[in-house]
Amino acid sequence: MLHLPPIPPLDVEAMRKAAERQNTLTKPLGSLGLLELLATQLAGMQGCERPHAAQPCVIVIAGDHGITRQGVSAYPAEVTPQMVINYLRGGAAVNVLARNAGAHMLVADFGVAADLPPHPNLILQKIAYATRDFSHEPAMSLAQAEQAIEQGIALANRAIDQHNADLIALGDMGIGNTTASAAIIAALTGKPASEVTGRGTGIDDASLQRKTALIENALSQYELHLPNYQLHTGEANVDFGLKLLQHVGGFEIGGLCGVIIGAAARRVPVLVDGLITSAAAVLAAMLAPDTRKYLIAAHLSVERGHRVALGHLGLKPLFDLEMRLGEGSGAALAIPIVSAACKLLDQMATFAEAGVSNNG
Amino acid sequence: MLHLPPIPPLDVEAMRKAAERQNTLTKPLGSLGLLELLATQLAGMQGCERPHAAQPCVIVIAGDHGITRQGVSAYPAEVTPQMVINYLRGGAAVNVLARNAGAHMLVADFGVAADLPPHPNLILQKIAYATRDFSHEPAMSLAQAEQAIEQGIALANRAIDQHNADLIALGDMGIGNTTASAAIIAALTGKPASEVTGRGTGIDDASLQRKTALIENALSQYELHLPNYQLHTGEANVDFGLKLLQHVGGFEIGGLCGVIIGAAARRVPVLVDGLITSAAAVLAAMLAPDTRKYLIAAHLSVERGHRVALGHLGLKPLFDLEMRLGEGSGAALAIPIVSAACKLLDQMATFAEAGVSNNG
Repeated sequence: MLHLPPIPPLDVEAMRKAAERQNTLTKPLGSLGLLELLATQLAGMQGCERPHAAQPCVIVIAGDHGITRQGVSAYPAEVTPQMVINYLRGGAAVNVLARNAGAHMLVADFGVAADLPPHPNLILQKIAYATRDFSHEPAMSLAQAEQAIEQGIALANRAIDQHNADLIALGDMGIGNTTASAAIIAALTGKPASEVTGRGTGIDDASLQRKTALIENALSQYELHLPNYQLHTGEANVDFGLKLLQHVGGFEIGGLCGVIIGAAARRVPVLVDGLITSAAAVLAAMLAPDTRKYLIAAHLSVERGHRVALGHLGLKPLFDLEMRLGEGSGAALAIPIVSAACKLLDQMATFAEAGVSNNG
Repeated sequence: MLHLPPIPPLDVEAMRKAAERQNTLTKPLGSLGLLELLATQLAGMQGCERPHAAQPCVIVIAGDHGITRQGVSAYPAEVTPQMVINYLRGGAAVNVLARNAGAHMLVADFGVAADLPPHPNLILQKIAYATRDFSHEPAMSLAQAEQAIEQGIALANRAIDQHNADLIALGDMGIGNTTASAAIIAALTGKPASEVTGRGTGIDDASLQRKTALIENALSQYELHLPNYQLHTGEANVDFGLKLLQHVGGFEIGGLCGVIIGAAARRVPVLVDGLITSAAAVLAAMLAPDTRKYLIAAHLSVERGHRVALGHLGLKPLFDLEMRLGEGSGAALAIPIVSAACKLLDQMATFAEAGVSNNG
């Protein structure tokens, strides 16, 4: 039986104080635009008038997907372990961006289809060697779905307790995982698979058609269509969320969903990346709707379905640089912006301190 | 007689090599989106296959405006020197953002209407105590217009020679300077004043109407309408540019125009901020059209006219956070993104180095 920690409400008093202070700082009222709103939201999340993002942590979870056997990706599944090794050596985009942002990075194997060489920075929590091919059978057992989420919650706690994380950026690795993510987003937003399924790492038209059909078929076969009236109630439906993860999900997606729940439970803001981490966020919102309040959308990805997922979550991305890499690249790139929003609120002089004339 | 240094062409060979390297890095082709294009452009600007933004420098130039007597701003003119002192003490938004980005900051007085207390970090190059009120007489003499540009060129050289600047972010300070900037943008894009004039620091409807009318009247009175066919030729027209700066411009705008020219002449990329620095960029493009190739648009400001100016320059902003503060805040916030684009190209492992299977 899955135990989910309670999600605290935003601290409205901290938000009020943050917004009040914002209006005393040496700038025209509201002239820092969305940076001011962001700082206010962070104040509510952290329960702190002067929020901070001084110890950001990027969490990348990797897992493989049985559905790759159906030719849904431009890359072979062996790329998943190869890229995990690349993360451990510091050579991937997310490493460069995490360093650029002064962020710590945690890399976890929740379901890679190969034995990875031991490495001091690799968190080995493999649930299985890849999910099963969901076009033939459920991707995992219900117990494995629960385990993925529980391990994710523990990973968030580890980032917070061992690395003092005050901001968590989500990243994913798993060849085939845009297929699982699109299936989750379609089921939880009520959109047809054709509207949320994209080219991932770059498949051709025929493969895209096949990928879309596989998702549609799986959602029908496993009866994963929520009735419309249940899509937007904002009510938790843990059973349905778990069933969805079990049948068409992935170990890294369940894990990322757990990280979101674990972070939100501890009042730590979470930066969502592209399609896969957004699918995890949509799933988290089904299991624990209040997690939404702890999410920040880093960017808008090119990958179809990302816009739908962010819209469903009510999130506005900070930027759109036409990225579609995943692995936490967009989230890591957003860290300096979140950090800047906090520092502006904390470090700017007030009109009184600076002796600057205010208007009105 | 104004001497303008020649602007070197982009290094096409460096761009070709940068783009080629981009395609060998461990990520799906093109998946870093605009970050890849940005790195390629920077390679062309710097003439270097692996461009860098390791020593960014924010240059803020301040000047006052006689037109403020006509009630075009929500803040009194005394705020200009007060904010300059705020910059020197490190309490303004741009200070926080420059520190967040690891950038050096230069603050220059080109025309503040008060004697500023001496400060080791203040570059005192006052041309006059504010411009004259352009609703009654030209804002400055032709000699002063030339002086502002020349001082700006020298300032760029100082940033490059003394501080090793490999990226320059532009900032402005000057109560009333959205009026001068809107006038310059209207004249050089052929748009009516009503389409490029905004609320600046936050004026009401009546003031906005007055501000727009002042701009329209000045452009007619001083015959500052270029014939339409001359607006988009891409040809230099130094005499017209100088006449425009002289009649409706500002010392900081001329200075920023000079910084752009000076930086481009030395192959140093320039981050454009909001309306004022974009007016300077539009002016620089009239004096030396090839400066455009060295510009990066940081953000889209809320201030009307900014979109028009960026469109005229052919620039796409990196983000839109609904900011409208000026002083280099948007440009400074963009530095970590530019820096990230460079580091990705430089530091990411190739498929061969990482032993990752490539597709195709």
